[in-house]
Amino acid sequence: MAYANHQFRLAARPIGMAKRSDWTYAEETVGEPGEGEFLVKILYISLDPAMRGWMNESRSYIAPVGIGEVMRAGAVGRVIASKNPAFAPGDYVYGPFGVQEYAISNGNGNTKVDPRVAPLPVFLGTLGAPGMTAYFGLLDTGQPKPGETVVVSGAAGAVGMVVGQIAKIKGCRVVGIAGGSEKCNCITKELNFDVAIDYKSEDVKKALQSHCPKGVDVYFDNVGGDILDAALTQLARGARIVICGAISQYNNTTPIKGPSNYLSLLVNRASMKGMVVFDYADRYGEAAREIAGWMAAGKLKSREDIVEGLETFPETLLKLFKGENTGKLVLKVADA
Amino acid sequence: MAYANHQFRLAARPIGMAKRSDWTYAEETVGEPGEGEFLVKILYISLDPAMRGWMNESRSYIAPVGIGEVMRAGAVGRVIASKNPAFAPGDYVYGPFGVQEYAISNGNGNTKVDPRVAPLPVFLGTLGAPGMTAYFGLLDTGQPKPGETVVVSGAAGAVGMVVGQIAKIKGCRVVGIAGGSEKCNCITKELNFDVAIDYKSEDVKKALQSHCPKGVDVYFDNVGGDILDAALTQLARGARIVICGAISQYNNTTPIKGPSNYLSLLVNRASMKGMVVFDYADRYGEAAREIAGWMAAGKLKSREDIVEGLETFPETLLKLFKGENTGKLVLKVADA
Repeated sequence: MAYANHQFRLAARPIGMAKRSDWTYAEETVGEPGEGEFLVKILYISLDPAMRGWMNESRSYIAPVGIGEVMRAGAVGRVIASKNPAFAPGDYVYGPFGVQEYAISNGNGNTKVDPRVAPLPVFLGTLGAPGMTAYFGLLDTGQPKPGETVVVSGAAGAVGMVVGQIAKIKGCRVVGIAGGSEKCNCITKELNFDVAIDYKSEDVKKALQSHCPKGVDVYFDNVGGDILDAALTQLARGARIVICGAISQYNNTTPIKGPSNYLSLLVNRASMKGMVVFDYADRYGEAAREIAGWMAAGKLKSREDIVEGLETFPETLLKLFKGENTGKLVLKVADA
Repeated sequence: MAYANHQFRLAARPIGMAKRSDWTYAEETVGEPGEGEFLVKILYISLDPAMRGWMNESRSYIAPVGIGEVMRAGAVGRVIASKNPAFAPGDYVYGPFGVQEYAISNGNGNTKVDPRVAPLPVFLGTLGAPGMTAYFGLLDTGQPKPGETVVVSGAAGAVGMVVGQIAKIKGCRVVGIAGGSEKCNCITKELNFDVAIDYKSEDVKKALQSHCPKGVDVYFDNVGGDILDAALTQLARGARIVICGAISQYNNTTPIKGPSNYLSLLVNRASMKGMVVFDYADRYGEAAREIAGWMAAGKLKSREDIVEGLETFPETLLKLFKGENTGKLVLKVADA
């Protein structure tokens, strides 16, 4: 049995914001899985800020997507045919299946997910790579201690919302920086943050002075740019800055804005350290179990922003860079 | 007995490079030391890049010098009168005596130095704060391992020359970045560095690619600006950047240039950490003994650039920012 498979393939390296013409929307036929392979029907696709970087020519922590290749993306789907004994039809599975309706996989880099533990989109967010990033970035790189002040930018995003909630669970005072009152209400009223700073309507530097009078012990940065520079002005002695991302800079057509206030690292004996979640792959199980436990206990909430329709992919992706999503942005491709 | 004491007092907060009119050159009379005090005749004054920062209004890791106060500086002198039992006439002593000919001290923050161990100016450089900065910044913050590649900027300066030589002693491959062939010859021919990169005549980024093919494991930064950005492009996985100073930026009249390539910290899981030598005060003795041992064994050389005459202070200080000194810059005030 053959399926018509719609897919987005990279057509051009974007300049600035990606646009629809940077991909081709094609249809091809997907056939039967070969020996050791399975066929997955994709249900939900993860949209991540990092995808913009993968579209560039230069190698970052991972090779770029090649021109003509299916756009890389994590996704969750249902196995519909299998010649791999580890994956049976009906299994739900996560993998780097790409922006398309069907994929054939040999199982490498795939993990089965259990919809009784959480709704499927959660496995792309809080129980997926963003949740793992938050968990290891905060706990391993940021090393927060009870009573310390943790500040996170992109606080209503997939990573930020988990960072803040874990920091609360660990006994920290948590300040989230987000854009707009809806996001700010979400993190303080639904997600247990102590304070929200709305960077669209407040002076972030002054707000940090006011809300972090003893200084910022851990700053978890998802955004870079002016907000990173503001955080640098309010570091506590021995502060740790976790460099997780810099969404404000990914669509630049000019050089990235470096943090002008970086000498605050010297004055405050502080550190700024980068992290890439893949390095923790052998501990994902441990982290997912702990996060799922917190969710079951009502201590940690997940929130997703789900947009329907594979064909909306180019415009839906831009919601990330326009700051329009609250929670993990997910593209719904088909009903389970 | 009273002495005529010439001194430089801060008169204005400089804009850009400091100039002679930012100080007043005054003469006042210094009297007898009181109970618990001693009078020191200043022989050598330490000139340090940090002095420029102390002239600014804003507090850094130390309070600014007040308008009208004697310009802060470390110095070595000879005790010529004493009512403090711990310091006898004839003793040589280091302390924050300021840019002047005589000082009265109660002994706080002063240490006796032994001219049989090394010539007096060395106690302002390799056996003084710059040597301590190099020792703890490299070993404690940089954590170099044998066989790793260590790159240091300002390599012919008071801190950089010690950083590179200690890194060699610890079994690292050492690349120094300095300006001009005299400095580059000095560090490779006299000071045992493996490679010198002349930032005035070479493309630092390309030179680092060529000389550090496996990447830079430890980058010890004294200069900031474009050289820090170049180093960021060639980091090895897990690299450590030590932020010790940013001499290229201290006279800016525009905002400091932040490192545009800082996301290399993410890609390479690298860290950038600031250090202030004062934090190691209780371990200075240990470090000084080890450095003096290396000097006695011929493994570590000190080099000073000595300029005579207190009255030349404003112009001599600028040698640091013009890159004109090779080795520790010292102002000689009087003969021992």
